Formats: sequence, structure tokens, C-alpha cells
Amino acid sequence: MSQPSNRGVVYKGPGKVAVESIPFPELALGDRKCNHGVILKVLTTNICGSDQHMVRGRTTAPEGLVLGHEITGIILEKGDDVEFLEVGDIVSVPFNIACGRCRNCKAGMTGICLNVNPARPGAAYGYVDMGGWVGGQSDYVMVPYADFNLLKFPDKGQAKEKIADLTLLSDIFPTGFHGCVTAGVGPGSTVYIAGAGPVGLAAAVSAQLLGAACVIVGDMIEDRLAQARSFGCETIDLREEGDMEDKLEVILGEREVDAFVDCVGFEAHGCGCNAGKEAPATVLNSAMTITRAGGQIGIPGLYVTDDPGAQDEAAKVGALSMRFGLGWAKSHSFHTGQCPVMKYHRALMQAILFDKVKIADAVNVQMISLDQAPQGYADFDGGAAKKFVMDPHGEFVA
Amino acid sequence: MSQPSNRGVVYKGPGKVAVESIPFPELALGDRKCNHGVILKVLTTNICGSDQHMVRGRTTAPEGLVLGHEITGIILEKGDDVEFLEVGDIVSVPFNIACGRCRNCKAGMTGICLNVNPARPGAAYGYVDMGGWVGGQSDYVMVPYADFNLLKFPDKGQAKEKIADLTLLSDIFPTGFHGCVTAGVGPGSTVYIAGAGPVGLAAAVSAQLLGAACVIVGDMIEDRLAQARSFGCETIDLREEGDMEDKLEVILGEREVDAFVDCVGFEAHGCGCNAGKEAPATVLNSAMTITRAGGQIGIPGLYVTDDPGAQDEAAKVGALSMRFGLGWAKSHSFHTGQCPVMKYHRALMQAILFDKVKIADAVNVQMISLDQAPQGYADFDGGAAKKFVMDPHGEFVA
Amino acid sequence: MSQPSNRGVVYKGPGKVAVESIPFPELALGDRKCNHGVILKVLTTNICGSDQHMVRGRTTAPEGLVLGHEITGIILEKGDDVEFLEVGDIVSVPFNIACGRCRNCKAGMTGICLNVNPARPGAAYGYVDMGGWVGGQSDYVMVPYADFNLLKFPDKGQAKEKIADLTLLSDIFPTGFHGCVTAGVGPGSTVYIAGAGPVGLAAAVSAQLLGAACVIVGDMIEDRLAQARSFGCETIDLREEGDMEDKLEVILGEREVDAFVDCVGFEAHGCGCNAGKEAPATVLNSAMTITRAGGQIGIPGLYVTDDPGAQDEAAKVGALSMRFGLGWAKSHSFHTGQCPVMKYHRALMQAILFDKVKIADAVNVQMISLDQAPQGYADFDGGAAKKFVMDPHGEFVA
Amino acid sequence: MSQPSNRGVVYKGPGKVAVESIPFPELALGDRKCNHGVILKVLTTNICGSDQHMVRGRTTAPEGLVLGHEITGIILEKGDDVEFLEVGDIVSVPFNIACGRCRNCKAGMTGICLNVNPARPGAAYGYVDMGGWVGGQSDYVMVPYADFNLLKFPDKGQAKEKIADLTLLSDIFPTGFHGCVTAGVGPGSTVYIAGAGPVGLAAAVSAQLLGAACVIVGDMIEDRLAQARSFGCETIDLREEGDMEDKLEVILGEREVDAFVDCVGFEAHGCGCNAGKEAPATVLNSAMTITRAGGQIGIPGLYVTDDPGAQDEAAKVGALSMRFGLGWAKSHSFHTGQCPVMKYHRALMQAILFDKVKIADAVNVQMISLDQAPQGYADFDGGAAKKFVMDPHGEFVA
Repeated sequence: MSQPSNRGVVYKGPGKVAVESIPFPELALGDRKCNHGVILKVLTTNICGSDQHMVRGRTTAPEGLVLGHEITGIILEKGDDVEFLEVGDIVSVPFNIACGRCRNCKAGMTGICLNVNPARPGAAYGYVDMGGWVGGQSDYVMVPYADFNLLKFPDKGQAKEKIADLTLLSDIFPTGFHGCVTAGVGPGSTVYIAGAGPVGLAAAVSAQLLGAACVIVGDMIEDRLAQARSFGCETIDLREEGDMEDKLEVILGEREVDAFVDCVGFEAHGCGCNAGKEAPATVLNSAMTITRAGGQIGIPGLYVTDDPGAQDEAAKVGALSMRFGLGWAKSHSFHTGQCPVMKYHRALMQAILFDKVKIADAVNVQMISLDQAPQGYADFDGGAAKKFVMDPHGEFVA
Repeated sequence: MSQPSNRGVVYKGPGKVAVESIPFPELALGDRKCNHGVILKVLTTNICGSDQHMVRGRTTAPEGLVLGHEITGIILEKGDDVEFLEVGDIVSVPFNIACGRCRNCKAGMTGICLNVNPARPGAAYGYVDMGGWVGGQSDYVMVPYADFNLLKFPDKGQAKEKIADLTLLSDIFPTGFHGCVTAGVGPGSTVYIAGAGPVGLAAAVSAQLLGAACVIVGDMIEDRLAQARSFGCETIDLREEGDMEDKLEVILGEREVDAFVDCVGFEAHGCGCNAGKEAPATVLNSAMTITRAGGQIGIPGLYVTDDPGAQDEAAKVGALSMRFGLGWAKSHSFHTGQCPVMKYHRALMQAILFDKVKIADAVNVQMISLDQAPQGYADFDGGAAKKFVMDPHGEFVA
Repeated sequence: MSQPSNRGVVYKGPGKVAVESIPFPELALGDRKCNHGVILKVLTTNICGSDQHMVRGRTTAPEGLVLGHEITGIILEKGDDVEFLEVGDIVSVPFNIACGRCRNCKAGMTGICLNVNPARPGAAYGYVDMGGWVGGQSDYVMVPYADFNLLKFPDKGQAKEKIADLTLLSDIFPTGFHGCVTAGVGPGSTVYIAGAGPVGLAAAVSAQLLGAACVIVGDMIEDRLAQARSFGCETIDLREEGDMEDKLEVILGEREVDAFVDCVGFEAHGCGCNAGKEAPATVLNSAMTITRAGGQIGIPGLYVTDDPGAQDEAAKVGALSMRFGLGWAKSHSFHTGQCPVMKYHRALMQAILFDKVKIADAVNVQMISLDQAPQGYADFDGGAAKKFVMDPHGEFVA
Repeated sequence: MSQPSNRGVVYKGPGKVAVESIPFPELALGDRKCNHGVILKVLTTNICGSDQHMVRGRTTAPEGLVLGHEITGIILEKGDDVEFLEVGDIVSVPFNIACGRCRNCKAGMTGICLNVNPARPGAAYGYVDMGGWVGGQSDYVMVPYADFNLLKFPDKGQAKEKIADLTLLSDIFPTGFHGCVTAGVGPGSTVYIAGAGPVGLAAAVSAQLLGAACVIVGDMIEDRLAQARSFGCETIDLREEGDMEDKLEVILGEREVDAFVDCVGFEAHGCGCNAGKEAPATVLNSAMTITRAGGQIGIPGLYVTDDPGAQDEAAKVGALSMRFGLGWAKSHSFHTGQCPVMKYHRALMQAILFDKVKIADAVNVQMISLDQAPQGYADFDGGAAKKFVMDPHGEFVA
């Protein structure tokens, strides 16, 4: 049988992506055999904010990189060592690639697997410095350690019906949720979410699912704030004058929140009079200011070890000017790193399947074709209050 | 100033309660001075299922006992050592009395305070063997260690508006919640709640607040099951024939649940062909049957050390015939005891104040006057799908 | 190349074991291929108390069963899917067989893996109803899912030097440790260990490693108690008259302990005047009596779902007469099940390799040859205060 | 009865302390009555590294401040609200003052009590900006909320015998322990302790008590490193050339540790070629470098909100140049703040009373008289590998 052709979204240099023909995947990564892997026909694959870091040219991503680490698919072919999945199963792919056999994976820390990236702990599909695994914004993609990594949906018909929600299980829903969990969000919490991009909105929904009493989202883009209000969040427009504490008091009757989730990361910009300038520690310093003593700060937003495009020398090596003493005085704890998706995806799938949560509505999923990828990247970079989900095989969009 | 008169609901022997004149409270319990205490004007006070154990004559409660441990009130007078509360504050009283100074209180285990009951750890208002503290189904009541025990509502007007919800913070909402927490309920869980009385319904709401994907409530009283369905639970009528596992499979697509909460306790009755006979281990044995391997079993339902009215000798000394080996094979854990209300009441208050939860609707609060107490007890014992809340001063019912 | 011959310890009916020729292992279990497995040359393999349940005829174990689930070995051959281990590596085998790919394994609950035993969650080598995997009291044995299951020792020479300690990582050291962890043992705890067999002694050492202030071991066999005293435990001889609480008070100045670990299980016998009679709930009932309110009860001792050899009808179906109400009044929690060895074995290995713990001395390891297995079983059944470790290839005993 | 006279150690300006006559304590702090308080005859009171920050003039501490927050004493007098302590009891005083009645205290976060310092959460005796409570390097001192705060020793004779150990329960033993707990230290861990002052040494002992496999202590003072080696730690001399990772590899066979405890804080100095220069983020940046991915970083070392004596503008407002991106890439978490002593002191007392730990030997307690305070401060500032404990009433030193 002749293999189908394959197309993928390829990084072509700062500001440019293109949909190009790419090789059909095989059960290997270079010399490394992957009999534990499967080849997926991609049902949906999403554009992620962290893809933007690469596309903006803020990383050392090489031209030619096939992008995409948010993947949902149907199993087309499986390796000999795959025992508990079948061809035809519909599955969600955690964006972190994990072996399931190392010390970290055994401890549930699949975001820092020791066996999938020779350069450092942790790997992902289609991402610079993340192990060289091919991205999944494509027709077909290979997923290694499939029995371990993949989450199978129990019913195929239902999976397709709810695909706009389920597609978010590969990254942003768990990532937002992880931010909330590590920030200590629980029933009755008051929560501040920094950033109303898709991860921020996913964190806001997650806080609600965790029982938070009040979720406040801050951003500088009105459309995104409106999106947050659409599902019951309070919002703060950071372009407006005034102390954050005063604004909190109006909403909460208190000047601090119980929990803070940083969904912005290192590309943060100043607010108020500093609006527009990059200020990589500004979110962290806000966190220490407005989080109550004893509170926790969850940081799913990406901070990088090296940022060659940064505006000052310190930031270029990932050093930030943090008011750490303020956090210390308040006994804060700070929780960083990639979300270990596997820790949460099954539970969040259940919440979706039993209609406990409407994540696709919250982040405003817009389905597009693979060919529309360049436009999707551009719109997302422009601040569209949307989560772009690509449908390579045209199953869900006409 | 002359003291107001006081009336309370008094246990008069098996099956009988009466509203009688009782002494006005003082800041003392016998010889024990309580300068750390306050005297409350009772705003609301609820009839609890555990009061029924006494009223049914299943305990050694003495005639003359003033009942009532679910109390919300307004501070009328405070002792010299009360620093952080003021006369006029509206407060919720945790049913467990706790000193705030012993090893257990310091560890958050206020249900087993070491300093408030000479007979054993743990005390409550108006309850047999629970330290002799006077009950609060009355116009006025004394609350010791007030700074520690009481939860102050931030806004008095709002507190009165939401009194039907807030009154449930003194016991059943935290108790149901604690059952869920100890059963490991979280986002995405499937949960079985044994018993659709007020605690069971409160547990069901709590499971939803904790993000459960699906909450299934089992009982033998149709009205109570209907009540559970009214806020989105699935139900199982235990009088109907058929295996529990089969019924679960219809609802869940799986034959087991992730988490089990026993809201029935020692007065459990058999189901199916054994309906009507007391079977004190039946709920626990069901728990081991239908909870998945690795699951946890939360047991807020009361099991007693001595049950003189039990039908067999073993049960009289609190011994149950548990299929413990079944639980062992499934690595179950079992979590018992009084809910330490203080661990949860502030968070649940926030959930109420921010409209995250409608607990009064869920348990079907019915406000009655103090004089209607005997009827309330009788109706509740008859299986009414209601939570009776008394309004001693006629502020909320005409 | 011709395969080496293989010999194993075989169950021959109640009270009888024999060393017999058995097939050389293959990378399969019947029709189930195990390319993920390895074949080990067994360096050491221990006799376990739970083997005794079978050999005493208290189970439905079939004659011909090859025994042994406590295995340490050297990799002789590996399947194609084994990526991170090499021929020649010296490894510890967790007694629970786990796939590393199911929901429970991913959550660290390897004792109740869903994919290795068609009959129920959880499997083990050489054990009745545990999936049919061949036991390892033999020259050679097959271990499936090797990358996931095995713990590799970092240095082969050091591994052989410390083999008497390291051999205990496959079961009893983690099992005793798990009992302590689930009982909440930590720095400063007072701990009661029920049973001074090897698991009890391992639990006692574990409690010390966890920082317990005082570890008290109870048993009826003087040699075993002497063994416990040899490494600093206090002991209680259960054959002596007198209340447990009084004895605790002499040792601790308090009548209760913080934590209780049941290392006896369902074959418990009464103490004092009931000495000698089986009393399957006696340890659990003691636990509720002497554990402080708020304490936890860890139960690594085996309780079975069916016990055809039990003395009463209830116990035959695994039902025990537990004074559950007593536990409830004290807010106890009860933690059951097989130890998930993988959760602990790496950390305990480190404690051994850095000389933090002398587990072999504590449990009194005695190395014997495979041929001495029948004598070892008999001596152990007779109450010898020893842990018998077999050395099939004569590397460690002359 | 005439009151005894009182003397205390008083801060007299940068570099100077003196023993002077001070007022006898009363059960009040200014206008705030403390009927919940006791007056202690001070048995022992220790000089703390954080006292040095004030004495060096690095804070805004006013001249005339009575120093001392590490206090052990005997109850001389008690207020009317003290119920569970008696005159004559020997007690340990946690350095953090806590009301036992606020949200944070109820959650065990006594280091950030909301009711004892109008300026911010958290208070201490004899410390700048910590609520104005009088210090306890004196003959007599007042302790508020005594029932809540104090830890009573069970036996007075034993307490005096072990006073050199027990005196460390008021601060440094729990503080070091908290650092380890928040760093995730447990059985089998490899741990790096930054700083071999008394808190660092206490952390090292704590790591051992928690079961750590290997504890490595780094400092620049040879005497302090020798002290660390005296109880079994490995050490690294930071003045020596060479990569930390290489040194770890020699000791551990691995280039990273599982857990890192920063016992240095904001007055950190560079190492190697930067030796001698203040480098406030150097310890935190080391932590991110040598802690394994997934590890936790405990930070009991003090970081301040304002440091007027700092060498650069950023540090003056508590801002440090942290390589936060490096921590993020490794999924580190950072745990800051004052140790909530009460969470640990009872357990650590038990460890001392049952001879599980020799903390006084580890930190090298030297008993001195109150009059020797100035010399003690000077020696300690000079880097003496000693913990100075004052004995105001001459009970323990001749």
C-alpha cells in the first residue's frame, strides 16, 4: 500500500510560516526505533502561544521546523510494542513526550522526562530544543511510547461531537489547570489570572472547575477580557490607571487574592505608564504584591533560560529582577515548569464528557483548515481572542 | 438590665421533644469559666440527622437535654478574652467545640479537641457524651472559645439575605464536603453518595463544587432521590432489584466509581430483599464492592462505639461484620470521624457569598419557627426530603 | 546456544515444598508476548511470610506452583522493547508486576495494575490468583515490562557487597515502609508495630528511618522481640498479662501511640487469655484502642477476600467483626493494600547505599542455598527470627 | 510582693549591644492587654543569625531595642485567660508570635499571623518591624497567647538536663527542619545545604532526621565545615576553585542533588573568584543550577523587602537578579518565609527527648552568661562555629 502524502506547517523564519509537503512519519526518530509508537491521522491540532515565541523569532528555532504540539488524532498504524491501543482509536496526545520508564515519569513528572531529549529533561513535538520530535500541525504525525502517552476517548462518536473541547486536552486545558493547582486554587478561593490569552482563559475555567469563589482575569486586550467575562469572570484592564489593590477591593472587598496564576511568562509587558515596554519580571512582582501572605503562585507561563532577543543583558540569560524579598516576607511559594499533562488529562476529559465544563466556548475555539495556518498565526499574534484549531482532513469544517 | 427569657427544644424521652423555657446562658459551663465565650442571639438553628439518633432513643441521652448543634447567631455579649469579634457580628458556629490550644486543634483536627470533653476527644452542643455543652435549638446560646470557633460573615445585610444557605455552614455542608474530600473527590471524579438525607445531598453538592464529573446518589426514599435529581445528580433507588454494578454501568459506562461517600452510618438498612432490616455494615460492604481499586471511602455517616438498641450483640458494642479483605485487595482507604468544620467553613462561605453554590436549594431548606420543632422532628424522621431550619426570633419566617 | 537448565521451589500441597526442575523462562506468559521483558539470572530470592499462607494450605494455590516474588537478579537476556537496561545490569524486581501504562500505574499505584491479571487489579510472581506469572525462587525468571519495573543498582560491585540489604528492596523493606508512611509516621512519632516477623521488623526500621521518636513492637515470640530490641526498638510481649495501655504508659508516658502499623493480617491470633486462637480482627481492634484520636492505621498485613480455612463462616468470606465505631469516634483512617514497591524502592536503595540503614541486620537475613528451601520454609513457619534469602547460584554462600 | 529587677541585651547602634536594666514585663503590650499571656523567667535565650542583621546595622532597628527571639523559660505568672498551663511549667517559646485565632493561624501558618503586627502579617520578639514585642535576651519576658504559643516540656528534670538541645526548639531547629521539609527532603534524598551557620547545621541534622541518604553542606568557613563533618555530613568549601557539579559528582556519583536548602539569605557572598563581594542572588542561582529537574528549593534564609545597606539600587528594594528561566526549565518550586515553628516543635521535642537527635552537638552550643552577650555577638559575627546560648539566671553555667 502506498503511503498517503503528508503536509505540515513549517517555520520559515521570523514572522513566517507556510504549509508544505513533509515526509510521512515513520516509527522512528532518526536512528531511534519507536516500536512503542503509533502513527496518527491528525484530527485536530491547535496553534499555541508558545509556538508564537518561535515564530516571532525570539528563539533559536531553525527554519524548516515542522510546528505543532497540540494534537488529537486517530490511530492509523501501531508499533509492535503497543499493547493497549488499537488502530482506529481516537486519542489525545499530551504535548510533553515522555518515556514512562524513567525516574521522573514514574513520579508523574512527565514534563521533565529523562529519556526523550539528550539536551535536557523534557521534550515536545515540533519545538526548538525539545528533542527534535516532528511537529503535529500536519496530516499525520508519529507519537512514541503510545501506550503510556496517549489518552483514549471511550466513544468515537462522542469524541468527534465534542472535538472542539477535547482538542484542548493536549495542552492548554491541563496547563491552565496545573497553574491553578500549583497556585493552591480550591473551593472558595479568590484567584487572579494574569493574561487572558488561551492559557489564561483555560486557567480561569479551571479555577471555576476547582470551585473558586471568584476568578479575576487581567489583560491589556479588551476582546480577551470580554471573552473572560463571557463565562463569569471578573476582569481588570491593565491599560487603565490605578492600583491593582484598589481594583481588587472593589471586586472582592479585599485587597489581595488567595491565589495567583501567571499565564504570561517572560514576554510580559509593563502596565499603566510602562505599557508597551517589555518588563519580564512585572507579572512575578505583581504576584508578590497582590497575593495574600501564605498564598501560592502558579507559573505556567514560560520563562526561558536564554532569550537572545531580550532588551537587556540580564534578560538575555534569563535573569529577572525579582522583588524576591517581598515574596519571602509573605511566605509565598512559586511553582514553575511545563505542565505534566498526563497528571490531569483523564480527569479533565471526564469533566468534558459529562458536560461539567465548556472549555471550547471559554477559549473561543475557531476551527480552520491547515491551509489557513498562516492566517491563524497572524491573527493570533495580533491578539485575537480566539483559539485556532486546525482540521487537516476537513472533518469538522466545511 | 434584666435578662431576656430563653426557650429551647428539649429531649423528653424516646420519640418526644418539646419547646420549653430554659435558663438564659452564662459565660460558663458549670464551674468552668468561659471568658473566651460569647452569648449569641440565635438567628437560625437546624435539625440534624444525628439529633434523630438521640430522639429515636438509640443513645443514652438523658431526658431534659437541650438539643441543637447547628447554630448561626448574632453576638449579644462577649467575654473579656474575646478580642477579634464585636457585639452585633453575625457568625456561624461550627458544631464541634474546640479550644484552639491543644495538639489536635493546632493540627486542624477540631473535631477531636482534647480540652472540651473530659470523657473523650471531641465535643458538641446539645449532644449526649459530647461534653455537656448546652444545645442551641433555643433563643440564646453560649459559644466558648469564640475567637477561635466562630466564622464572622463579612456583611450583615448579605448574611441575612443568604441565611438559608449560610445556616448550613455549621454542620452539614462542611460534613458532606469533608466526606467528599476524604473520599478523594476532585475534578473529573465519578462519585457515589450513599444516602440522600441532608448530609447526603450536601455531599452531592460538595462533589459538584469539587468538580466531580458525575455524582450518583443512592437511597430508598423516592422524594429524596427526586431532590438529588433536582440539581443534576444521577440516582439509584435501592428498593429496586438488580446489581449496583449494572446500574452504574448504565450511568457511567463503568461498573465502579472513583470515590464513595457513606452518608448513612450505623443505622443502615439492607436493600433489595433485605430492605427494612438493619444491616449496619451494608453501606461499608457496598463501598468496597463498587469503589475502584485505589479508591478512597469517606465516612461522614456516624458509627457509634456503643449502640444499646442494636439488633445483635456485636453491633451493641459497635462491632460490624465488614468484608475488610475485599477492601484490602483493592487497596482502599477508609476515612472516618466527625468533620472538623473549621477546616472548611470559610471556603464554603465564600462559595455561597459569590453564588458558586446553592446549598439551601439542594437540601431543600424549610424554615420553621421554634414552636414547630416537634413537627419538624417528626416530619424529618418520616423521611421528608427537607432540611428543617428553625428561626427562633421570627426574623425570616412570618 | 543451549539454554541453561532451571530449578525452582515448587508448592507440593499443604506443608510441602520441593526444589524441582522447571522450564527455562521465555519472554512470554502463555500466548502473551513479552518483548518488554527480561530474563534474569537470580542472584537472591527471599522466602516471604505471604508465601507461608499458600504453603500452609490457607489458599487455593494449585500444586505445582513455582513460588517466589522477592527477586534480585542480573539481566541475562532482554526483549526488543527494552531500551534502558543492558545485559549484565543488576536489578531489584518489585514483587508487584505492573505494566506502566494503565491508569493506576500512571498514578503510582503499581500494586493494582489493571493490565497484568485478568482476574482483578494487581499481580505478582509465583502467587495464587495473581495473574499466573512464574515465581522466582529459581535459577532464572522472566520479568515483564522490565524498563518500567526494574530498579538498576548503580554499581555492580557495590550491589554484590550489599546484596543482603538490597535483596530486601523487592518486598519487605518497601512494604514495611509503606505501612509506616500510610500510618503517618514521621519525625517525632510514637509508633506501634503489630508483629515482629520480617515485615514487622522492616516496618520498625522504616519508622526509625522516617525519624520516629519511639518504636514499639508487639509479638508473642520472644526471639523475634529480641531481634526488635537489637536495633533499638521497645517491645511488648503479647503473651504477658496486662493492658496494652498500661504497658505503653510505662514506655512512653502516654497511653496511646501516634501511629499503628498492622504487620500481621488475617491470620492474627488472640493475645493474653485468648492466646493461640485465631482472631482475625484482633489486631485491627487493638489498633483502634491504642491509636490516638486523629491517628492513622497502616495495614500492610494481608487480609483476604476469601479464606476457606477460617474458623468461622464470616471470616471465610473475609468478613471481620471490627469495632468500627471506636475508630470512627477517634477519627481514624485505615490504609490497606499491597505496597506499591516502585514508589519507594529507589529512595530506600539510596538509604542502603549511603549506609543510612542496616535492614539486613534488622530482619536478621540468613543466606541459604536453593536446595535448603524446604528447611527454610519449615524454620520460618516455626517462628525463626530470621529472614531466609536464597542464593540459587551459590555466589554468596559457600 | 516587689517585682524582681530585669536586665536585657539592648541594641546600641551598628556593631554594638549592651546588657542593661530594662523594665520588668507586664501582661500587656502598650495599651493592648494580654490576659492570655504569661511572664517567663528565662532559662535560656539564644543569639540568632537574624539578630546579626540588625546589629550589623543592615536594618532600621532603633537603638534601645531589646533583642532576643529564641526563648525557653519557666512560667512565673499567668494571665486570667491562660487555662492549660501552670506556674512552674517549663516551656519553649516559638519565635513567631501568633494569636491562634486568625485565618492564617488556623491553617497552621503561625509565621504570618494577622493579629499581632499592625504593619504586616507576622511578628516576633525583639525584632525590627515585627510588632514591637519586647525581646527575650533578658531575665524575664512576656509571652502572649500563651496557651496557643507555648510548648510545655513533659518533665521538668528531664527538660533541664536536655536544655542545650531543647533551647533550639524556639527557632533554628524548626527553621532548619522547615527548610528541608519545603525542599522535599525525605528518606533517600540527596541534599545540599547552603551555609554552615547554626541554621545550616540545624538543616543538615534535620535532613538526617528525615532520612536523607547524603547531606552536603557548603560554606566558606573551614571551622563551620568541620562542624558539619563532625556529625556525618559531606562538605564543599566554596572558596576552592572548581565547578559545584564536579564536586557533587565525586561525592554522589551524580551532578545534581534532589533537594536544596538555602540557609544563607540576602547577605550571600559570591564564591570562587567573586569571593567576598555581596551577591544576593548567588545562592538562589546555584540552587537552580545544581538541583535536579523536579526538585524543590527550601529557602529559610532571610530575604528582605528593603535593604538600605545593599550595594546596588535593585537590592535596596529587595530585587534580585534571578535566573528564573533556568528554574522554570527544570520545573523547580521555591518555598520561602519564616518557619511556622509550631508546626514542628512538638515532634522535634519528641525526637530530642527520645534521643533520636543530638542537635546541640551538631550546632555546637556554647552556654554563656547574659553578661557575655556582647562577646557572644562579636564571636558569632566573626564566624565562630558555635551557637551561643545565654543562661540569664546562671542555672546551667557556673
